[in-house]
Amino acid sequence: MKKRTNAHRYNLLLVLILLFTSFSNNAVAQDNKPYVRIAKILIDSAQLESYNAALKEHAEAAVSKEPGVRTLYAVYDKEHPTHVTVFEIYASLAAYQSHIQTPHFLKYKSTVKNMVKSLELTDVIPIALEAKLK
Amino acid sequence: MKKRTNAHRYNLLLVLILLFTSFSNNAVAQDNKPYVRIAKILIDSAQLESYNAALKEHAEAAVSKEPGVRTLYAVYDKEHPTHVTVFEIYASLAAYQSHIQTPHFLKYKSTVKNMVKSLELTDVIPIALEAKLK
Repeated sequence: MKKRTNAHRYNLLLVLILLFTSFSNNAVAQDNKPYVRIAKILIDSAQLESYNAALKEHAEAAVSKEPGVRTLYAVYDKEHPTHVTVFEIYASLAAYQSHIQTPHFLKYKSTVKNMVKSLELTDVIPIALEAKLK
Repeated sequence: MKKRTNAHRYNLLLVLILLFTSFSNNAVAQDNKPYVRIAKILIDSAQLESYNAALKEHAEAAVSKEPGVRTLYAVYDKEHPTHVTVFEIYASLAAYQSHIQTPHFLKYKSTVKNMVKSLELTDVIPIALEAKLK
């Protein structure tokens, strides 16, 4: 009877180890993969200048202060200045989740709350992320 | 009569100098400004892998070989892999015009000719182009 209980305990331990290893591997794999997203934002035309200033300030703060925020390329359509696109690269999903809790992100969100008419977020998968600094 | 002709010549010279200065300034201003564009490309689903391979090869060649090609971020929508987006930054419009005459660009264009179902190009104006390498 004692032996069977020990065998059960070993089995349980084995299952727990396997589960833990599997979770850890997933976490590591997820962390090594950049998280890339395209945000399309429609801005209230009357507040365009204020919005652009807030977005610029936010992008500069995020990329300079957060090691996990690699790229924030914010642009507007030449023909439709109220159509803003942000191309976003984070070192990982975890880096993004930490980003949205930073004071500069929360400040940006509260500043632009009434300037944004719509927001469309698209998760994307890299084919090639080729860039060089100037 | 001779004097008036000389005066005319001086005026003509002045106008030419002003025109030349104006053109030069425009050319310099244009050359110093990055040219930024977003390409949206719809791919034939049967040729997705070949298309992605060709785009990856082209992006790597362009950014590594051309000083004026700063960024080619090529991605596909996670939910719609046939929807490809390329975020493109060139040092100037002239750098872009030179880019589309390179052997690697011409090779890419000819390779993907029958893989692309539609192509939408949007000129955009930077609000903030914040990035750091890893």
